[in-house]
Amino acid sequence: MNDDISDQPVDRPRLALLGLGAMGGALARAWLAAGRSLTVWNRTPGRAEPFAAAGARVAGTPAEAVAAGDLVVACLLDDASVGEALSGADLAGKDLVNLTTGTPAQARARAEWAVRRGARFLDGGIMAVPPMVGVPESGGYAFYSGSRALFDAHHDTLTVPFGAVYTGEDPGFAALHDVALLSAMTGMFAGVAHAFALIRKESLAPSGLAPLLVGWLTAMAPHAYQIAAHLESGDYTEGVASNLAMMVEGNATLRRTAEEQGVGAELLAPFMALMERRLADGHGDEGTTGVVDLLTR
Amino acid sequence: MNDDISDQPVDRPRLALLGLGAMGGALARAWLAAGRSLTVWNRTPGRAEPFAAAGARVAGTPAEAVAAGDLVVACLLDDASVGEALSGADLAGKDLVNLTTGTPAQARARAEWAVRRGARFLDGGIMAVPPMVGVPESGGYAFYSGSRALFDAHHDTLTVPFGAVYTGEDPGFAALHDVALLSAMTGMFAGVAHAFALIRKESLAPSGLAPLLVGWLTAMAPHAYQIAAHLESGDYTEGVASNLAMMVEGNATLRRTAEEQGVGAELLAPFMALMERRLADGHGDEGTTGVVDLLTR
Repeated sequence: MNDDISDQPVDRPRLALLGLGAMGGALARAWLAAGRSLTVWNRTPGRAEPFAAAGARVAGTPAEAVAAGDLVVACLLDDASVGEALSGADLAGKDLVNLTTGTPAQARARAEWAVRRGARFLDGGIMAVPPMVGVPESGGYAFYSGSRALFDAHHDTLTVPFGAVYTGEDPGFAALHDVALLSAMTGMFAGVAHAFALIRKESLAPSGLAPLLVGWLTAMAPHAYQIAAHLESGDYTEGVASNLAMMVEGNATLRRTAEEQGVGAELLAPFMALMERRLADGHGDEGTTGVVDLLTR
Repeated sequence: MNDDISDQPVDRPRLALLGLGAMGGALARAWLAAGRSLTVWNRTPGRAEPFAAAGARVAGTPAEAVAAGDLVVACLLDDASVGEALSGADLAGKDLVNLTTGTPAQARARAEWAVRRGARFLDGGIMAVPPMVGVPESGGYAFYSGSRALFDAHHDTLTVPFGAVYTGEDPGFAALHDVALLSAMTGMFAGVAHAFALIRKESLAPSGLAPLLVGWLTAMAPHAYQIAAHLESGDYTEGVASNLAMMVEGNATLRRTAEEQGVGAELLAPFMALMERRLADGHGDEGTTGVVDLLTR
């Protein structure tokens, strides 16, 4: 028995990384810190220098990087950059993981494009910011979708920078999950901005409001479970403690308070309008689930 | 020594409760269950019957209820109902707690009105729905503001139905905190509705998305601490991991995905527009805190 066996890079893929922006650079550092074989390429060559010093090989072209790798990871500006960078590369027999931000439709088209060139393809959507990369306790992770075989084969490598959640063979699902969560966060941040605006002219410390907001939002986030149950059962009244009729009455107080405090209600108005439209349609005993239907009609 | 002494209603106020709607009824049940002396009044007398059976005295008029109580709690439809109900009552020497939903300005005006009539006044904003009342583990609580002396004198009684958080002598602060938290929640619910709409036409179960949403929103809610720190220091770039320039690039993906999925982007559009306005003003290295300023200008 040899205690060192776990340190041997047995069956570890040769990695090629395209893109050394804030996120790509963080990925490179995480893989190098884990002792992985890494070839990097960046459109602006100067950015690659510190990684060369840390042990990465630097390729002069994307095609050269791809040739040096078994597992090719793209973390570029946008989907068009991926197509452009890889246009001259031989992808046959390669495993391509696309961590470039994009839409579900872009991921689906890119998957077809990669498979036509003989590669296995996995799309990823990163739920982390660069400082969280390589820091397991940060809770950062990425959604993946596309080739399950690729995901399983490279799980050890993919989980070096952050956690990995597989969402299905449909290559659009990673981006869809990514965008769904970021969209929900955008709504929450809008609400938080409105809340702080309400106290802006008062003798109240924002640092006093913050923990109350965090506690309340954390307590109310599980409302999403009720929406999910409603959408699956089709009964939007199930388990509703505060119904649409009551919430719409509350909207009037929210609007009036914003006005009193000199705050524009523009961030809340569209949701309140949809709640009111659903109430006017005769659904006062429901929760807010009907708004989902109004958005997708 | 008498072990029963803790069961004696020593110095416990005689309670008068105006309003037996969903929330008022829950309050009455909680106080009766705690063995408190309670006189109730409701505009529609029939609603008082079950409470009479449970041990409450029923007053024929608000003035009669007020006369029978040391601590008078109003939980009515709106602020106008409070003025109307109490117009003929003698409030001199009474402690009045107003748990009726209203705006900060309404609470301030009602406080002046009550003090002119010789009462001590405390306004409250309830962060709970009726099923949470009298259930300590539900985490329900109310914000209070106004007379600190009243709050301290009746803390034991006020904390029977739910927790109590005192926010200051300014009688408008309870309503302001209440509305700030509900506004933030409204934004979060809007984001959640958008997220579910994105997967509505896909072969993805809403119950699979829900825990991911809850986990992500819970992880991102502490963003409010950063906003608070920014507002207090005036430096909106401090500790920003994902800056406005990066987030605005992300907005394009959010918009395009909504379009691909056949979802109206109306719930996210106003916040994205303010982020973009702040970026155009040259603040690309900030987080989202500048939106607070744009809302209050």
